[in-house]
Amino acid sequence: MKPNLKIIKIGGNIIDNPQLLADFLADFSKIEESKILIHGGGILASKLNEKLGYKTIMNNGRRVTDKDNLDTVTMVYAGLINKKIVATLQKNKCNAIGLSGADANTISSKKRPTKPIDYGYVGDINNINTSIIQLFITNNITPVFCAITHNKQGQLLNTNADTIAAEIAVQMSNYYTTELIYIFNKKGVLADINDENSVITKINTKTYSNLKRNKLIHDGMLPKLENCFYALNKNVTRVIIANHTLFSEKINTYTTIIL
Amino acid sequence: MKPNLKIIKIGGNIIDNPQLLADFLADFSKIEESKILIHGGGILASKLNEKLGYKTIMNNGRRVTDKDNLDTVTMVYAGLINKKIVATLQKNKCNAIGLSGADANTISSKKRPTKPIDYGYVGDINNINTSIIQLFITNNITPVFCAITHNKQGQLLNTNADTIAAEIAVQMSNYYTTELIYIFNKKGVLADINDENSVITKINTKTYSNLKRNKLIHDGMLPKLENCFYALNKNVTRVIIANHTLFSEKINTYTTIIL
Repeated sequence: MKPNLKIIKIGGNIIDNPQLLADFLADFSKIEESKILIHGGGILASKLNEKLGYKTIMNNGRRVTDKDNLDTVTMVYAGLINKKIVATLQKNKCNAIGLSGADANTISSKKRPTKPIDYGYVGDINNINTSIIQLFITNNITPVFCAITHNKQGQLLNTNADTIAAEIAVQMSNYYTTELIYIFNKKGVLADINDENSVITKINTKTYSNLKRNKLIHDGMLPKLENCFYALNKNVTRVIIANHTLFSEKINTYTTIIL
Repeated sequence: MKPNLKIIKIGGNIIDNPQLLADFLADFSKIEESKILIHGGGILASKLNEKLGYKTIMNNGRRVTDKDNLDTVTMVYAGLINKKIVATLQKNKCNAIGLSGADANTISSKKRPTKPIDYGYVGDINNINTSIIQLFITNNITPVFCAITHNKQGQLLNTNADTIAAEIAVQMSNYYTTELIYIFNKKGVLADINDENSVITKINTKTYSNLKRNKLIHDGMLPKLENCFYALNKNVTRVIIANHTLFSEKINTYTTIIL
């Protein structure tokens, strides 16, 4: 039987709130199974951009990454956020290692075509180096990935953290029973975005189609759900969307995505 | 017999010059023996500080690291510089991994006492995690350390890169025949700082005392030489001070430090 592996992605709402981040990382450290953390960037990159006089241009919720913006995200994601998370996990006795995709060639990607939209230095994943990730995990080292990859030709590329999480879960499912968990600012997918108590506890492909057709799912949630179904279709065992309390509360409400 | 391990530290003059850095990393990648790279920060951190309106305060050539400065060096050293170096090494088929001391708990330190001078968030090394570094090396992964460590209590600390290099060389000498190499902007230690051809090819403790007594060594070189003798006294086999051409030119001039 394959060992278990949890792949957990945290979003900006946790990263931007020091106390929430500290609490979450303490909970994360207590997870006894093998685990991988993936973090997005939050608003820090845009804040730094502003201070530096760089433009922040978003398109469909995704950052258009020119040379200046690539420097900013490399500094903020791979530097400031990643190392603070790693140091905090070390404090909590979780032997974390911070990684960009360039590190040990863990995630390689190719620059996204400039049409229809030129996102600049943005990469779509080519390959996940599962043997190196296994090396870390078997040595009880917990990988912490930021949303930066490389093209193997010396170019760093900004890469969507949700997609990194899904792709790692998919590729690692050859060796582990994988569980993909997206932690964001709501208790789960809401039927009514204004009602925190309207969590849909189970979504399958059929209910997803219905929800989408009736425009009951917030636009920002659609790519996340696409990642969820992609992962399930590629042998990830369990996919969950939840908020930061997932590992701290005994009784909890969250959304499970099923096929 | 112990296998060989080169521990190579590069300074600001290489980091601040993209072409020099690219050339050096191409040469570095060709070294067939096991190797570790340590890099300082160059002027990028001070430049970023300036843009952000943070103060850069140096004392005896070392950065006084307040909270803002710690964020800056974490972004620049562990983020921008480290990841660009790693991506470039990957391009050159060197399977590099970028590390702060927090990553996999590779280097822990304690905050320097605030007297006689309060350097702020500056750490003095407590421990080098030789077993993790060995794990990387035996798996043909080349560690690339930036000048950031952690105190195991969640605090990142700015740490002198020359000292990190010396301490890694010392600790790894239990398992490897270690060579410590400092690459800086001169061909070696100069008898006359205005004459590039005045390289002193060998310095031992006696000549060092004489040079120091006669004030023939530039102040900035003294701590580097102290690190060299410390390393030699702690079983590092060979210590060299050279410029970036060390690995590219067949006939070369450099300084060897001996006891």
